[in-house]
Amino acid sequence: MSKVAVMGYGTVGSGVVEVLLNNREVIAKRAGEDIEIKYVLDLREFPGSPIENILTKEFNDIVNDPEIETVVETMGGLHPAYEFVKACLEAGKNACTSNKELVAKHGDELLKVAKEHNVNFLFEASVGGGIPIIRPMKSSLTADVIEEITGILNGTTNYILTKMRDNGSAFEDVLKEAQDLGYAERNPEADVEGYDACRKIAILTSLAYGKKVDFEEIYTEGITKITAEDFIYAKNLDATIKLVGTSHIVDGKVVAMVAPVLIRSDNPLYSVDDVFNAIYVRGNMLGDAMFYGKGAGKLPTASAVVSDVIETIKHKGINVMSGWSSDKQELLDFADSSRRFFVRVKESEGIVEKIMSVFGNIEPMDMGIAGECAFVTTEMSEKEFNEKKEQIPGIITRIRLSF
Amino acid sequence: MSKVAVMGYGTVGSGVVEVLLNNREVIAKRAGEDIEIKYVLDLREFPGSPIENILTKEFNDIVNDPEIETVVETMGGLHPAYEFVKACLEAGKNACTSNKELVAKHGDELLKVAKEHNVNFLFEASVGGGIPIIRPMKSSLTADVIEEITGILNGTTNYILTKMRDNGSAFEDVLKEAQDLGYAERNPEADVEGYDACRKIAILTSLAYGKKVDFEEIYTEGITKITAEDFIYAKNLDATIKLVGTSHIVDGKVVAMVAPVLIRSDNPLYSVDDVFNAIYVRGNMLGDAMFYGKGAGKLPTASAVVSDVIETIKHKGINVMSGWSSDKQELLDFADSSRRFFVRVKESEGIVEKIMSVFGNIEPMDMGIAGECAFVTTEMSEKEFNEKKEQIPGIITRIRLSF
Repeated sequence: MSKVAVMGYGTVGSGVVEVLLNNREVIAKRAGEDIEIKYVLDLREFPGSPIENILTKEFNDIVNDPEIETVVETMGGLHPAYEFVKACLEAGKNACTSNKELVAKHGDELLKVAKEHNVNFLFEASVGGGIPIIRPMKSSLTADVIEEITGILNGTTNYILTKMRDNGSAFEDVLKEAQDLGYAERNPEADVEGYDACRKIAILTSLAYGKKVDFEEIYTEGITKITAEDFIYAKNLDATIKLVGTSHIVDGKVVAMVAPVLIRSDNPLYSVDDVFNAIYVRGNMLGDAMFYGKGAGKLPTASAVVSDVIETIKHKGINVMSGWSSDKQELLDFADSSRRFFVRVKESEGIVEKIMSVFGNIEPMDMGIAGECAFVTTEMSEKEFNEKKEQIPGIITRIRLSF
Repeated sequence: MSKVAVMGYGTVGSGVVEVLLNNREVIAKRAGEDIEIKYVLDLREFPGSPIENILTKEFNDIVNDPEIETVVETMGGLHPAYEFVKACLEAGKNACTSNKELVAKHGDELLKVAKEHNVNFLFEASVGGGIPIIRPMKSSLTADVIEEITGILNGTTNYILTKMRDNGSAFEDVLKEAQDLGYAERNPEADVEGYDACRKIAILTSLAYGKKVDFEEIYTEGITKITAEDFIYAKNLDATIKLVGTSHIVDGKVVAMVAPVLIRSDNPLYSVDDVFNAIYVRGNMLGDAMFYGKGAGKLPTASAVVSDVIETIKHKGINVMSGWSSDKQELLDFADSSRRFFVRVKESEGIVEKIMSVFGNIEPMDMGIAGECAFVTTEMSEKEFNEKKEQIPGIITRIRLSF
């Protein structure tokens, strides 16, 4: 019998309890012993709920109880999640979390503390919700030099972009619909501005290269400027628009960004629609691999947390998660990273000639949208593109290409 | 320094050597120590190759060498692979294999021997080539009751079906082309008759439910009867045709089969084309997940084998692979399993009335192919379908539906 505590009885925390209770038998078989939830920590009351009698408001009940082998942290936010998790690790308890802010900000330190105390700090649910990606990266993609990671890492924005494409709707209209359906928060900034995806690609990139990526250094652009017209051009390019978190290696340096990009139909991420997430990884031996599934939601996320709990029980006294060090991962200056750009420009006298004189011999795209023209550049650095862009009057938008 | 031996220097075995040599530094970092290939076992000579000086024809050199911690089995076939792997496990050495015949036939026994000797028997590369699926199933999808596994598990047949669909070609023509390109064997039976996929779904199903599935009991049908015309109807159903290995639970019993099925565009497997493989898994908490990548090929497969070797080094003296027992997994009688069927029938006097009198109020499909009509049945058992089919004259083909 292994005893665990769940800290935070919100959406994911209550999901963890539900998974542990509903699948108790199969989980006991796989963990090698039964799992009992001894405490649920929350400041709220839950009268009539299955956890009514094990609810505590006192963190000390948990950290000071030698019977507790593993804690689940599903409170979210940085404080007191950080302090609680650290104290539990220092008390010789394993910790499993779904908290991407915590992992992106303090992952290196908490991994180190776990190692020092010969316990495990696991965070499968912090990226891609229910999709197994953290453990596969640490224990399956180990024979390869990882050349690229590109993920559709946020279900809300993928839902919005899918509906904009399918229905020709405006961003604001689909966002409102997503909020009404509960797919988007009332304050959607963390999703639509790409901040959520940014933390997740920071975690994946840290794992891939073994050094800490500071998420605050990653260039991050959201989807608020994407319009229905952009999808008309995308279709003409045999592509669609997805918000991705992506990193790859150029001359030994890591290039990382979060931004909406044009993805062509030959890319496996092209077909990942609605609230689904997927993470594409390219290894130097493996080639292409992709992991697909529900990137959020109560039970998928809880399933990932519980798989971590099972791992801690299967690895008592063995620190399995090497993770990443506190050494800083140097990123290539974003201005020096190169790619192609799709650009829409207001029509004006001599505009095509002007574009050609600045960008070279590009082919203008005419999708019959009045008063504008569009084109795709050759590959160039962000810096070069921005300099050239300044010379073109009436630029409506620009979207990066992934091909 | 961990010393390993590679048994069999064919495509995959030479790939393993290539991965270990090319990625030596990153592999050493992840394994925690350097890996040295001490022996390569093969009866052939490889003058001038990088393994010339470590080549041996004597299995005893390996099994009797106490320095060898892990052996890689990439000989293929059952004998002497089975005897060699078993002897190595009994000698206290870990074994990693890409050999699906071996795992499907003797996996339960070899897992048991490994456990008894506190070593590991790992076989990530036996299913899905480079796709991480075995380890994710054993260490990530552990919180769920697995409700369904459906895989595109054979790259050769997926390539053939993709080309038939895209070019409207006949099976024989694409097979010949695939043989010329080296994608299909001169004797293609194991691929095109579904035998390869059958062993792989047997392994996945054994893992999912913890009991041994006898692959010889799985209903297996290949793709040799699929025609270009079938794809015309498929398109009309917003579907395509894929050879899948699939298993799911009905009333506590496992239903398993290998067969070409119609897959609709809302299924993530729909977009898996060419030589790519993918495995879709549905968990009762997780919902849908899919793992996608190169299902074959020298380096992707070798990458999976090497990831197993790294796992054995990270788990010295710890048996991590619970796998499945020797208890027999009972399968539902295939005749009792239910689904919908797509049927093409030669046109004849009163045929539509005849079909309706037997199959009920179906809607005939007319794709303008002269001399025939087609329809989709309601859901019924294989047995019921076969009985009804007998009553319809001139049946051209029938393909099962996955929706």
